[in-house]
Amino acid sequence: MSNRQILIDSLPTGALAEDHFRAEDGSMPEPGDGQALCQTLAISIDAGARAGLQGSASYAGAPRTGIVMNGSTVSRIVSSNDPAYKEGDLVSAPSGWQEYAAHDTRLLSPLPDIEDPAAYLGVLGGTGLTAYFGLFEIGKPKAGETLVVSAAAGAVGHLVGQMARIHGCRAVGIAGSDAKCDRLVSELGFDAAVNYREDNFRQMLKEACPEGIDVYFDNTGGDVLGTALFRMNENGRIVCCGVVSQYDTTNPAPGPRGVPGLLVNKRLTMQGFLVFDFLDQYEAARNVMLEWLEQGQLVAWQDQFDGLDSAPRAFVDLLAGGNTGKRIVRVAS
Amino acid sequence: MSNRQILIDSLPTGALAEDHFRAEDGSMPEPGDGQALCQTLAISIDAGARAGLQGSASYAGAPRTGIVMNGSTVSRIVSSNDPAYKEGDLVSAPSGWQEYAAHDTRLLSPLPDIEDPAAYLGVLGGTGLTAYFGLFEIGKPKAGETLVVSAAAGAVGHLVGQMARIHGCRAVGIAGSDAKCDRLVSELGFDAAVNYREDNFRQMLKEACPEGIDVYFDNTGGDVLGTALFRMNENGRIVCCGVVSQYDTTNPAPGPRGVPGLLVNKRLTMQGFLVFDFLDQYEAARNVMLEWLEQGQLVAWQDQFDGLDSAPRAFVDLLAGGNTGKRIVRVAS
Repeated sequence: MSNRQILIDSLPTGALAEDHFRAEDGSMPEPGDGQALCQTLAISIDAGARAGLQGSASYAGAPRTGIVMNGSTVSRIVSSNDPAYKEGDLVSAPSGWQEYAAHDTRLLSPLPDIEDPAAYLGVLGGTGLTAYFGLFEIGKPKAGETLVVSAAAGAVGHLVGQMARIHGCRAVGIAGSDAKCDRLVSELGFDAAVNYREDNFRQMLKEACPEGIDVYFDNTGGDVLGTALFRMNENGRIVCCGVVSQYDTTNPAPGPRGVPGLLVNKRLTMQGFLVFDFLDQYEAARNVMLEWLEQGQLVAWQDQFDGLDSAPRAFVDLLAGGNTGKRIVRVAS
Repeated sequence: MSNRQILIDSLPTGALAEDHFRAEDGSMPEPGDGQALCQTLAISIDAGARAGLQGSASYAGAPRTGIVMNGSTVSRIVSSNDPAYKEGDLVSAPSGWQEYAAHDTRLLSPLPDIEDPAAYLGVLGGTGLTAYFGLFEIGKPKAGETLVVSAAAGAVGHLVGQMARIHGCRAVGIAGSDAKCDRLVSELGFDAAVNYREDNFRQMLKEACPEGIDVYFDNTGGDVLGTALFRMNENGRIVCCGVVSQYDTTNPAPGPRGVPGLLVNKRLTMQGFLVFDFLDQYEAARNVMLEWLEQGQLVAWQDQFDGLDSAPRAFVDLLAGGNTGKRIVRVAS
């Protein structure tokens, strides 16, 4: 029995391409003491992982070649040397892009079985929790305020806008195509959505936010952040969640004009966060989101590629804005 | 009797110069109903007023020529049509650069008489309060943490560093000359001070902060902000107080690289504020600072020019970094 793996073959110096990865048939790992063998069911494809392939500082550490590409998965236990985990158990596992991995069980989190376990990579996983804590703990929206979210059709963004609406805010999305914008409004109930690739994007954003912006949830950085910054209301909050405009390059853009001048004049707050900071509130947040899902107030979009070998394509396309909702690679069922 | 005034003669398109102002002998104002005639004792010279001479947005509103240059003063009542104010009373008055002004008394704040009323423009006025609330309410330093302040020999900066030390922090100043740096350490007890004009400024700042930066109090923006940003510790706070590097130009620099990427990776907060937000706590803060002054824990530097006609020179020189401590123009005693 072999273990199909996708390795980092070379580090990108410009835009990432599929041939920065290579597939190999490795040998089946043997779980040691206190370990379990996990079969990958689905892999989370995250724009943030691109930062880990850069030489610059990132919370993922320094990049290397010849290793399996990293990524969160939902996996099923095949065999276990820890009595707390048994064959067939569903777990969250940091297996990366491969069919099987042996892990110390302290690296696993047990998951309740549900109809589609891949939901634990999206709305019920780090993605949904990032949207939830970023919006409510960092953005601190009040009912009646205007929230704007960039990469609004993305994994985090499409949830943020819906949660803001549930909370009583006006929700405006920024996305990269008219088709995405249409779906945000017609399918998810966003109050407005604006295509940042249009020449008159600034004017369109202004019209979509007639009372200015109180909370800007930034998944992109770059020019989109710069534009939103100039529409912020006094005492506005900018949630710094991701920098997708800057990941796929070795020459990041300078920061937006208006930093720090506008922060002073308008008393703005810009705050970065990582979802892990809210670990002790995960369960409570998941329960709230589950209730919204059951009531149909929250809709989770999934954007699926099939087969492990599709992972490089799924990732490169994601960085170009090809996804709508949470992108995953389905490896096994 | 005449009223000497300094007017805005033209708006700067590049660096501000003395000849953007002109002096005139106006007529003595007559206080109307509910007004008082105020004689200017001393004028506060603030870098932030430079922003008000730019076409861009500022909390001071749009700039105009042919009007008296704005500025806070300490003044004495000459005559009054409001029984709540009487001849000889000391007040804070928004008179700007002139010897006399008639004001609606609701624009005045009564001040207790002290040996040098000009202290109400510095440590006991908006300057000291800005240092106090910016540091404690926005920066939220903890004992043992490292605080860095830019424009550290300036009106706000020299107070911020001392307050941080009183609070148990390591205080590091950034200033524009070796002489200023020496005085910060030897006279005010800063733990270290670094000259940003030195070629190896980055390395010097790193060595002055061996445990990184927890709170960065930014009075400058620009490259100094960019450099400090890369030394911030996780969960660090950047207090956005002023942008002196950007005031004296019509072409502000782009924002620092690392915004928003580093804010995400290091969970940093950047927050702007205006001192007026803390109006209800002014008295309590003044009492704390008065106690520190009396105990000799806090030293307030005053940097004085004499005579109303020196105001343009005092202002232009301030923007070039010529001041050490709080710059005022003494008009009368």
